[in-house]
Amino acid sequence: MRGAVLYAPGDVRVEERADPAIEEPSDALIRVVAACVCGSDLWPYRGVSAPSRPVPMGHEYVGVVEETGAGVSTVGVGDTVVGSFFASDNTCEICRAGFQARCVNAVPMGSLGAQAQYLRVPLADGTLVATPGHPDDDLVPSLLAASDVLGTGWFAAVAAQAGPGRTIAVVGDGAVGLLGVLAAKQLGAERIVAMSRHAPRQALALEFGATDIVTERGDDGVARVKELTGGLGAHGVIEAVGTQESMMQAIRSTRPGGHVGFVGVSHGVELPGRELFFAQVHLLGGPAPVRRFLPELIDLIWSRRIDPGRVFDRTLPLDDAAEAYAAMDERRAVKVLLRP
Amino acid sequence: MRGAVLYAPGDVRVEERADPAIEEPSDALIRVVAACVCGSDLWPYRGVSAPSRPVPMGHEYVGVVEETGAGVSTVGVGDTVVGSFFASDNTCEICRAGFQARCVNAVPMGSLGAQAQYLRVPLADGTLVATPGHPDDDLVPSLLAASDVLGTGWFAAVAAQAGPGRTIAVVGDGAVGLLGVLAAKQLGAERIVAMSRHAPRQALALEFGATDIVTERGDDGVARVKELTGGLGAHGVIEAVGTQESMMQAIRSTRPGGHVGFVGVSHGVELPGRELFFAQVHLLGGPAPVRRFLPELIDLIWSRRIDPGRVFDRTLPLDDAAEAYAAMDERRAVKVLLRP
Repeated sequence: MRGAVLYAPGDVRVEERADPAIEEPSDALIRVVAACVCGSDLWPYRGVSAPSRPVPMGHEYVGVVEETGAGVSTVGVGDTVVGSFFASDNTCEICRAGFQARCVNAVPMGSLGAQAQYLRVPLADGTLVATPGHPDDDLVPSLLAASDVLGTGWFAAVAAQAGPGRTIAVVGDGAVGLLGVLAAKQLGAERIVAMSRHAPRQALALEFGATDIVTERGDDGVARVKELTGGLGAHGVIEAVGTQESMMQAIRSTRPGGHVGFVGVSHGVELPGRELFFAQVHLLGGPAPVRRFLPELIDLIWSRRIDPGRVFDRTLPLDDAAEAYAAMDERRAVKVLLRP
Repeated sequence: MRGAVLYAPGDVRVEERADPAIEEPSDALIRVVAACVCGSDLWPYRGVSAPSRPVPMGHEYVGVVEETGAGVSTVGVGDTVVGSFFASDNTCEICRAGFQARCVNAVPMGSLGAQAQYLRVPLADGTLVATPGHPDDDLVPSLLAASDVLGTGWFAAVAAQAGPGRTIAVVGDGAVGLLGVLAAKQLGAERIVAMSRHAPRQALALEFGATDIVTERGDDGVARVKELTGGLGAHGVIEAVGTQESMMQAIRSTRPGGHVGFVGVSHGVELPGRELFFAQVHLLGGPAPVRRFLPELIDLIWSRRIDPGRVFDRTLPLDDAAEAYAAMDERRAVKVLLRP
């Protein structure tokens, strides 16, 4: 089959990879209908965490089940399915507490490479959620978004305790940040401050429910959020970048007793303990337990109450994955959908 | 009046200080019935954060109201009162959200010096809680504990989400850690792991409700907590020290999705962002909003359902404050009560 492989920073190739097959009774094999490039894929692409050998890429997927292992019972051949970027059994104590990305049997789907024609999904019963039927074509981008960026933005908004009467600020205007805005809106936030200096992203943030745009960054951005919140800071802040500056901007924009949901994959971040102590904000972050939210998100998409697929501003054939990475790296695209 | 003053590391003197007086209509003036030395007082005493000039010491107090400003209405002359180590108005948005130590008008009581015969308490209506009547002498230590160490341990236990069915680990066996054990027990925790290698403190932890004692520290301590919790880690961990080692021990002892309540005043701590990201624990800490809990804590003490005053293993006259500091510094005492 064809699949994307990262050879070195900036060097993504689509080439023949071995066809995956059922290995465990709990596996499902899916034909990938749509995959995409994640903001987190850009870290190794940019050489920040470069692979030492060629690695398959991609961890977001919508597919159709081609075959199931003998132990799989909740999805069947022909089902359209969405899964998270971590396979999880959804039965262990950690999963039952809602933290499926840290399932005791978790498998990172990135290691299997979803930017490909076919994908083996471990722990299929726990990982995959079937859509209510065959999706209309225009729903596919939104279902694909649910696989990671929507689920991640949703987790961040939940961690930031977005809800009625709350002001939520969002640091980061990539797909996750934008869908954090959408999630905060769905969860009932009263005021949503999108921090962005890019006009097209500002426009999408406003469509997703942002009430205010702040273009300043760092300490100036913090000062603007405080101005907008009576000097106190936001009730909750979504951090969707992963740098020292963005983390500190998020923490400092949050009022005492408020909540920071941080989902940008952390790179080179060191949090000063003393400042964190006196900031007295709730911190929760990490790889989103997308599986916790998938049934609800699929329902919202299926009933067309949300349209998260709008974060995809470009669609390319899988064979053009290299251009997809380059476009996102150069910020010519927010997020690129790949059609195998 | 007599009051304790820190001149330099290791140099605490009790000397004549100016008598405090009502300065604002919201002030109350109290005669201090009991004060004490806090673990956090040892940081400047040890020179870790040394004062550049002589400073009054002490921020824990039980007293009797001597005089009130014209605007004070909730406490009156003759009332026995307990307050927190931060004066707070208890009416601002931050106070109403339960984070009174970060009140927009907060005043650190340490700057006024509670290790003294008299104390001016700003924002008396918001800060002070009167006891139901004149306390029996044997209740005074427990009421004094409520002023800081009990309230702080309680906040940490709430932040660690101690409750039925939960396993809570406690890092630190000072007064706050020990009262974190008591709080976790009161909040219904099923299993409470006290981390201590000091026999008298272990004994008190067991009396307060600890079910397990772990003597190992650092990574070995983490491994023991995991062993006790099916490999997952505790549901919640109370951190009551404030060092890099204790913070990392707390975070690493917590299961994914679990909660860390950190109340040891942070010294030299830098939290690695990437580890925190993948640890996926809830973090909340800082100066405890003791005022949030004071009415409930006073009620528990008054009805003799808890006896937190047991953390005081020595009582000295105020004039012997220097010995009180030395005894705690050398770990000859857990906590010393001072009688002005």
